[in-house]
Amino acid sequence: MTSELLGLTIEAVRPLDAAAMKLARELQARLTKPAGSLGELEELSVRLAGLAAACPPPRLEPAQLAVFAGDHGVHAQGVTPWPQEVTAQMVGNFLAGGAAVNALARQTGVTVTVVDIGVAADLPPADGLISAKVRAGTRDMTVEPAMTRAEAQAALEVGIQTASAMIDGGARVLLTGDMGIGNTTASAALISAFTGRDPGVVTGYGTGIDAPTHLRKVEVIRQALALHGPSWGGDPATDPVAVLAALGGLEHAGLAGFILGAASRRVPVILDGVIAAAAALTAVAIAPSSRDAMIAGHQSVEPGASVALSQLELNPLLDLGLRLGEGTGAVLAYPIVAGAVRVLHEMATFDSAGVASKDEQQQ
Amino acid sequence: MTSELLGLTIEAVRPLDAAAMKLARELQARLTKPAGSLGELEELSVRLAGLAAACPPPRLEPAQLAVFAGDHGVHAQGVTPWPQEVTAQMVGNFLAGGAAVNALARQTGVTVTVVDIGVAADLPPADGLISAKVRAGTRDMTVEPAMTRAEAQAALEVGIQTASAMIDGGARVLLTGDMGIGNTTASAALISAFTGRDPGVVTGYGTGIDAPTHLRKVEVIRQALALHGPSWGGDPATDPVAVLAALGGLEHAGLAGFILGAASRRVPVILDGVIAAAAALTAVAIAPSSRDAMIAGHQSVEPGASVALSQLELNPLLDLGLRLGEGTGAVLAYPIVAGAVRVLHEMATFDSAGVASKDEQQQ
Repeated sequence: MTSELLGLTIEAVRPLDAAAMKLARELQARLTKPAGSLGELEELSVRLAGLAAACPPPRLEPAQLAVFAGDHGVHAQGVTPWPQEVTAQMVGNFLAGGAAVNALARQTGVTVTVVDIGVAADLPPADGLISAKVRAGTRDMTVEPAMTRAEAQAALEVGIQTASAMIDGGARVLLTGDMGIGNTTASAALISAFTGRDPGVVTGYGTGIDAPTHLRKVEVIRQALALHGPSWGGDPATDPVAVLAALGGLEHAGLAGFILGAASRRVPVILDGVIAAAAALTAVAIAPSSRDAMIAGHQSVEPGASVALSQLELNPLLDLGLRLGEGTGAVLAYPIVAGAVRVLHEMATFDSAGVASKDEQQQ
Repeated sequence: MTSELLGLTIEAVRPLDAAAMKLARELQARLTKPAGSLGELEELSVRLAGLAAACPPPRLEPAQLAVFAGDHGVHAQGVTPWPQEVTAQMVGNFLAGGAAVNALARQTGVTVTVVDIGVAADLPPADGLISAKVRAGTRDMTVEPAMTRAEAQAALEVGIQTASAMIDGGARVLLTGDMGIGNTTASAALISAFTGRDPGVVTGYGTGIDAPTHLRKVEVIRQALALHGPSWGGDPATDPVAVLAALGGLEHAGLAGFILGAASRRVPVILDGVIAAAAALTAVAIAPSSRDAMIAGHQSVEPGASVALSQLELNPLLDLGLRLGEGTGAVLAYPIVAGAVRVLHEMATFDSAGVASKDEQQQ
């Protein structure tokens, strides 16, 4: 049932390299700073060494962000006040460089590419746009599966191929982005399915909906889970692609493939918010060790993001009250991640710098 | 008693401009994103507009970090296992580009300058070093005031002049850095004096001292407060320069002046950790509106930092378990601050991008 590309990718996702992690810990101890004083950056550098199976791991430049864009059949259920056309309009905004993620990516030195994996409109070719539409939006998950298995697999493969092409082009770190009016609904459905938590706990206010819309959104997710849940019989891990097909968006499938593609090449992937977190749960259900390639860029305001990151045991780097998506949290976190690696390359050791260490005096 | 430069600087520190803040709020509402979805970046952009008295405020480039370096007479009391010579050795490391702050500043595009305001060693002239030594280290605060009033004022002026020179040279944002073996002890003493909190509550483990050293450190701070506290009679705000002179380091005085200098020019200053927080309390006691120019870069592990930021009503942007100093937390926060301003310059509006807004559909 699994395509050849997906199968090979899953096979290539391996655990962290313990020897490289040990070397990174030893190197951290020799650098000119008190032991542990760089906090989370030190732990991160050790994990990135393990991921790359090298100490120091490669510098995280260049950095490439992929914004997977898609529309959602569940939009018909009134889960958001934003018109569906905004997805395509925002793609135009990304390509013109006028969205928040563009401004922030220019600040931190990240290149933004848009992947049309499922926008419900014809998008003319453009620089910075990868046209890889699997379908012009998903179906309504409250009525039928959002995607067929073949569509979900095709979207996963688009994600894998996007990651591969970026890494072949020199990228040393990938960042997740997304655009899709209605995609926090699909995210909450996936998170509820993969964590077993009630839709009422994992469903947020998205772009800023009102209380009646929020109630409807939770109810819509309950309906979808009631319709499709029996097909995986309480254990989503037995067939995660079926869960993804039933509830996900094309951009979630693309992102899950993108994460798996990065992990299979031992390249780190910085997750943005709740959409990425839902895709990350999907990726981990497909290939558990892909978790080790993931870095949680930030703590989204969306409650589903917290639930997902907690299950993934990922500690977000930033907590800035963001709830925009697009990849904004990932691009803001990027300099911290790149900085953690840079420290291993560029800092002097106590010996090389002729700096006395604490221990020297104690002797 | 106040020098002319300090007096003029204090006079030039003015409140935020309400008209520019209103314009920034209105601009945020027109940008292509759901209202409020950029969280803390939006609030920050509004405050920065108010500080600059312009909307949008100037882009925060170039960015200049000053590492104020000084030694501490209280080192003789055994408050740290690190030898005092490490201050001068680390200055050499900064100038050679091998310290953590250098690596991280290269990542985020910040220029690092070291100010020798009080290192207890002769430092040869070097590129990137400002030689402005007021005294070769402070006196032991448990025996006598760490500085005379004249020395504290001279160090404040070094800070003001450093800020002015950087801004005259084009800097649009300043960042605080520090180096001084023993300076978390002086920081805790200042924080205790300016907040009224007990030394046991505001004194941390610094670079990673053991429990007996920590007990001694708290006791040393109690001694210093018992010796000097009566001279300001329970109200440190009546003569903050006297408090600074009694308990502070030369780098604290320099940093307080640097903050006041930035505020007087309506330029934001990103604070690093606990040393900057102690200097910030001093600056606010001298000129209350200087608080509005301050951005808390991160939440240091040091408990005194939390107490100080809470009194200053500043919300730190990052919380990464850092306790290194040097300016590392400030340089990591810089892209977020610059990004908040960049958004106002570079994002499209709903009108300009032809993106439908939520309200359009609701009509």
